[in-house]
Amino acid sequence: MRKRSLRVLGAASLLFLGMPGLAAAQDGSLIETDVAVNSLWIILGAILVLFMQAGFLLLETGLSRMKNAGAVAGKIIINLAITFLMFWATGFAIGFGNGDNFMGSAGWFLSTGDAAGDSLSLGLLDFTGADYGVPVEAFFFFQAVFAAVSLAIVYGTMLDRTKFISYIVFGIVFVGLIYPIVAHWTWGGGWLYQDGFLDFAGSSIVHLQGALAALTGTLVLGARLGKFGKDGKPRPIPGHSIPLFMLGVIILWFGWMGFNGASSLAAVGANFADILVNTNLAAAGGVIGATIGALIMFRTLDVSQMGNGAIAGLVAITAACAFVDPWASVLIGFVAGLIAPMIVVGLDKMRIDDPIGAIPVHGIAGIWGTLAVGLFGTAARTVDSDLGVSAGLFYGGGGEQLWVQFYGVMATIGFTGAATLILWLIIKYTVGLRVSEEQELAGLDISEHGMYGYPEQFIEVPGAFPESTRHSVGMTMLSRPTSNSEPE
Amino acid sequence: MRKRSLRVLGAASLLFLGMPGLAAAQDGSLIETDVAVNSLWIILGAILVLFMQAGFLLLETGLSRMKNAGAVAGKIIINLAITFLMFWATGFAIGFGNGDNFMGSAGWFLSTGDAAGDSLSLGLLDFTGADYGVPVEAFFFFQAVFAAVSLAIVYGTMLDRTKFISYIVFGIVFVGLIYPIVAHWTWGGGWLYQDGFLDFAGSSIVHLQGALAALTGTLVLGARLGKFGKDGKPRPIPGHSIPLFMLGVIILWFGWMGFNGASSLAAVGANFADILVNTNLAAAGGVIGATIGALIMFRTLDVSQMGNGAIAGLVAITAACAFVDPWASVLIGFVAGLIAPMIVVGLDKMRIDDPIGAIPVHGIAGIWGTLAVGLFGTAARTVDSDLGVSAGLFYGGGGEQLWVQFYGVMATIGFTGAATLILWLIIKYTVGLRVSEEQELAGLDISEHGMYGYPEQFIEVPGAFPESTRHSVGMTMLSRPTSNSEPE
Amino acid sequence: MRKRSLRVLGAASLLFLGMPGLAAAQDGSLIETDVAVNSLWIILGAILVLFMQAGFLLLETGLSRMKNAGAVAGKIIINLAITFLMFWATGFAIGFGNGDNFMGSAGWFLSTGDAAGDSLSLGLLDFTGADYGVPVEAFFFFQAVFAAVSLAIVYGTMLDRTKFISYIVFGIVFVGLIYPIVAHWTWGGGWLYQDGFLDFAGSSIVHLQGALAALTGTLVLGARLGKFGKDGKPRPIPGHSIPLFMLGVIILWFGWMGFNGASSLAAVGANFADILVNTNLAAAGGVIGATIGALIMFRTLDVSQMGNGAIAGLVAITAACAFVDPWASVLIGFVAGLIAPMIVVGLDKMRIDDPIGAIPVHGIAGIWGTLAVGLFGTAARTVDSDLGVSAGLFYGGGGEQLWVQFYGVMATIGFTGAATLILWLIIKYTVGLRVSEEQELAGLDISEHGMYGYPEQFIEVPGAFPESTRHSVGMTMLSRPTSNSEPE
Repeated sequence: MRKRSLRVLGAASLLFLGMPGLAAAQDGSLIETDVAVNSLWIILGAILVLFMQAGFLLLETGLSRMKNAGAVAGKIIINLAITFLMFWATGFAIGFGNGDNFMGSAGWFLSTGDAAGDSLSLGLLDFTGADYGVPVEAFFFFQAVFAAVSLAIVYGTMLDRTKFISYIVFGIVFVGLIYPIVAHWTWGGGWLYQDGFLDFAGSSIVHLQGALAALTGTLVLGARLGKFGKDGKPRPIPGHSIPLFMLGVIILWFGWMGFNGASSLAAVGANFADILVNTNLAAAGGVIGATIGALIMFRTLDVSQMGNGAIAGLVAITAACAFVDPWASVLIGFVAGLIAPMIVVGLDKMRIDDPIGAIPVHGIAGIWGTLAVGLFGTAARTVDSDLGVSAGLFYGGGGEQLWVQFYGVMATIGFTGAATLILWLIIKYTVGLRVSEEQELAGLDISEHGMYGYPEQFIEVPGAFPESTRHSVGMTMLSRPTSNSEPE
Repeated sequence: MRKRSLRVLGAASLLFLGMPGLAAAQDGSLIETDVAVNSLWIILGAILVLFMQAGFLLLETGLSRMKNAGAVAGKIIINLAITFLMFWATGFAIGFGNGDNFMGSAGWFLSTGDAAGDSLSLGLLDFTGADYGVPVEAFFFFQAVFAAVSLAIVYGTMLDRTKFISYIVFGIVFVGLIYPIVAHWTWGGGWLYQDGFLDFAGSSIVHLQGALAALTGTLVLGARLGKFGKDGKPRPIPGHSIPLFMLGVIILWFGWMGFNGASSLAAVGANFADILVNTNLAAAGGVIGATIGALIMFRTLDVSQMGNGAIAGLVAITAACAFVDPWASVLIGFVAGLIAPMIVVGLDKMRIDDPIGAIPVHGIAGIWGTLAVGLFGTAARTVDSDLGVSAGLFYGGGGEQLWVQFYGVMATIGFTGAATLILWLIIKYTVGLRVSEEQELAGLDISEHGMYGYPEQFIEVPGAFPESTRHSVGMTMLSRPTSNSEPE
Repeated sequence: MRKRSLRVLGAASLLFLGMPGLAAAQDGSLIETDVAVNSLWIILGAILVLFMQAGFLLLETGLSRMKNAGAVAGKIIINLAITFLMFWATGFAIGFGNGDNFMGSAGWFLSTGDAAGDSLSLGLLDFTGADYGVPVEAFFFFQAVFAAVSLAIVYGTMLDRTKFISYIVFGIVFVGLIYPIVAHWTWGGGWLYQDGFLDFAGSSIVHLQGALAALTGTLVLGARLGKFGKDGKPRPIPGHSIPLFMLGVIILWFGWMGFNGASSLAAVGANFADILVNTNLAAAGGVIGATIGALIMFRTLDVSQMGNGAIAGLVAITAACAFVDPWASVLIGFVAGLIAPMIVVGLDKMRIDDPIGAIPVHGIAGIWGTLAVGLFGTAARTVDSDLGVSAGLFYGGGGEQLWVQFYGVMATIGFTGAATLILWLIIKYTVGLRVSEEQELAGLDISEHGMYGYPEQFIEVPGAFPESTRHSVGMTMLSRPTSNSEPE
């Protein structure tokens, strides 16, 4: 049976790469069990990462105005849908299919030689699903939800003022083309992989890419109305719910256990417990760092900075979690958290409006974490990491590794920065990127979606929302609905 | 040791049904490991499905008025409690115990020959826990949380106007008797199973049943006050929080990974990754379909329809996820989402009040999904599905399968529709089904529970809530509490 | 290779303790698989327990005033950070490292003979990570999140009036010293373990300890302003959101599946399905008990009591879930739920202010559950429990076991009660424990954190919040922020 024999081959490849668990198995059955165990971990990891969408929903809603809360919800759900469809159509093939050093070009729509997907050949190293020890569908699911995370980061920075249609167009191109190209460079066996670039679970590939798109987006879009006074000074526009924001942070922390942990891509013989201890220590370090950073910058115990510090620590450890010692994890997280409030102030000075802080916590922390692999990675850890497919084979150590990490980051910035900037500009001059001023004042909920996110709560809207705009968007729940309190 | 030998027997049965993973194992230890791996998947699936109660809590709370939000919370928790107790007492025995083609009649209170439950004989095919390769307690837990999902669906449609006591009475009978009878027909090896009816994870068994109870309930109960004007035209009564609603949607999506995925009832040798790829693609298709459907029907980007589209897609793929190709999954989900807003309008025209849209997204999508097995199922997928106990043995293909699917749906509608209708009528004329008009106007929180769901927020309540009603319900938090702002 | 051989040794120890799954394995590979399967269960359990922090966030936020909601969020995240850092630094070594009968004294900062942690010797019985069949890092992660649960319990009782800095100081000492000492007595192989004390997942060790710290904390701190009238009569100060509270309850229930289930510390050969059936039945019993208890005490269907009943049932079954039959689980949960509202009234009479009910649902239920092991435990269940390291070896049965359970509880009360009381007093007379009256009236959000938890919602604050206090806390978001509705 073709399926069986390929899986055996896959297991043999894993063996070669240092997974002792499969060494003595001569019959097929233990291999089948190991495939199931590895699949369970990757699938459960994917499920946890899928749930991170709830984290982004809450983090972004919590930091948006009440009049825009429903619009955030709409964006999250449509983008999750777009991600699954586009990653299935093209993203997975470009990211992980056979092709060249730049991008893959096989495996569209998960198309393979037979229904079970065994013959899909992934990446330059001829990765098949079997090579990962898991069915290709499990690996697809895992990678698809990573793309969804990268996309979700973008929208937080652009909330409260962006046209719904522009999200759809951007999401299609970002997930279907831009994101997977950079993913291919490393995880698909492309040129950065061959140079020895290490980004375990995607500090750069997932988080920095998302933050770059957010940065170019907010540059093209401009700041929210009222964010910067006539004197150029920033004015705080706090979100509407710190409890929902913090629930989002904890959901993201929870989901990160799958994000980093299951990036071991195997459970049998893999040290995913190590990875998760490092991940949690970095998150803890991030909270402490951001608490101190906010005290320094704002002289207050800023709860939103504390929550964002956890995210910054998690982003920073994402590249390095399999390669460093626990003490280094604490330090990596602490620094990421400490500098985040400083970046916030710096962006404000540059009049760059980033409502959720995606640029400091996903961008700067992503860069820092990727470089930290070169600063704190140890060969022992790296070899021990059981990331069968790459780590350790190329680990250069110290300065050599740091140099690779550096130009890997630079390449990501150059490519994704340019590609997303062009894409935003195209959107701006075609379907349009920003809502009208009157729509922004009224809030996106009513002006874009024809309904309120909090229909029963008083929301201050200056002036009547003009009739003309109303009719352009729909008619279901346009006016504040009559209460059902009055019987007929 | 009896326990061991039965498990070996169970594994042998699985082997016969195409689980190659256990073929070469001659010693007991690998089987013990496989039992652990399979148990892990089913238990983790059950845990995810348990969490779907949080999804229903939020979806239903989000779509209810602020004055009824606490009552929704009370119903969710009491019904979860009732489900576990009743499914333990009678539901599991009726659904999965030995009996006849119509219902089981053994295994009350999980009673079995010995404490470990090994000798429980389940269903006509003499399913023992061992036959599933997992302890019977794991299978019980998994099935119990499915019953809880079916029950949770009911209440959304009836919110804002139903007496608390009626939920309790209904829940006891529904979980303890009605739901498990229909479950027995297919999953317990009853007559539909023998006819070859395929409902992988319960589009009909779980979702359609819940929606039928919701439909008969709302018919007996009537619409919310103010929902339909004197002219018969529907008036929108939007829920109070779109962010909480959408959080509920994503939690349900997350939980569905266990709902559909772990319905493979095994991990070793099972293709649960395939199932989950199909499930996610259908959810994505549902979002896109509902977005378009809402644009057509309402000319607006309706966020609540978008969220419900995800649920519709998930419900529809639930029967078919193990039997169809990815492209068919997208289509199945898309159609379910597309028609949902149209059903909403149709129900409004028929003056049927369904606040959360349970009838379109769980009922109509459930029917559609069950039929879709006949339309899109492929023998290759079916045989490959590793649902050891049923699929493939009976797969008729094309028209033959579609016919079985059709009368399986009809039988479910006939039985559950009639049984729940009778039950609601009995409730109506005994303990009472609907609160008084003054209670409904005041909101169920204060009138049924003596407390507000949002005690600090202004909620418009016309007229004073009458003293008489107040005292009938309790006295803890009757009046809006004084702030603790005033020191003594 | 040292690592491999130690793991084999570990597996051999497990075998000795009754895990048949490993009996026939002669080659290393099946053991490697079993280590992976066991690790998966413990790690996934730890991830679920980590998520319980979201449950505490919501339960405590939901039951706090709107003006203090952001402060609760800040406490949850900082304490999670402190827990990971302190449990890594000292807590794990004291709790599980080698030492004497009272406390461990090895393994600081997870320090071990080599990087993989194999040579860490844990506890008096020379538990190594290998003895548990899992890497020591997995066991550390699991234990660290348990400590975080214990700490989270404390803060609910003290909300709305406690200085932020005092939480930090308390958390460092509690997680780093007090909690692990008591944990060591039983789980680290100390004197209570040797006496045969059974506390499967920590009714006393985790929940009672947390509740004791809460009790001593609220005694030193005093009640919230306005909680007790001049006549001494309690006045209700309801929380601000029942939906968020109930979401917290369901998240805790969800997380408890990992808390109790993965306390089997193994998956292969362990009966974790039994444990979870018992856990769910007890939670269900707790809801029913609390519903009845609230009807008796308050003559109302009190939703917050119903939710707390689920928690009480879960706390009570935590010690006994591996040792009792399902019917006993229902009874244990029911009693815990039934008495909770009565304890609430009793505390009110004693003028002890416990906003979230931590004392009844974690303290009294924790004591009840620990004693219930002696009342309802059965030797058959105990031996079958597969808690390899302890249960069954010492099970005394009936009166003998009950006596051990009793003095185990008393020792916990004595030690933790005294230690936390002293600690709170030290905090009170150094950094200070309670905010000023004017800060409490204004709410902790603005007075301690310089920002509102719900910046857009009207919160009744009597009198202007004085300038002097404002400036002492920061300057970012001091005044209610101007809306972004007004364009420049």
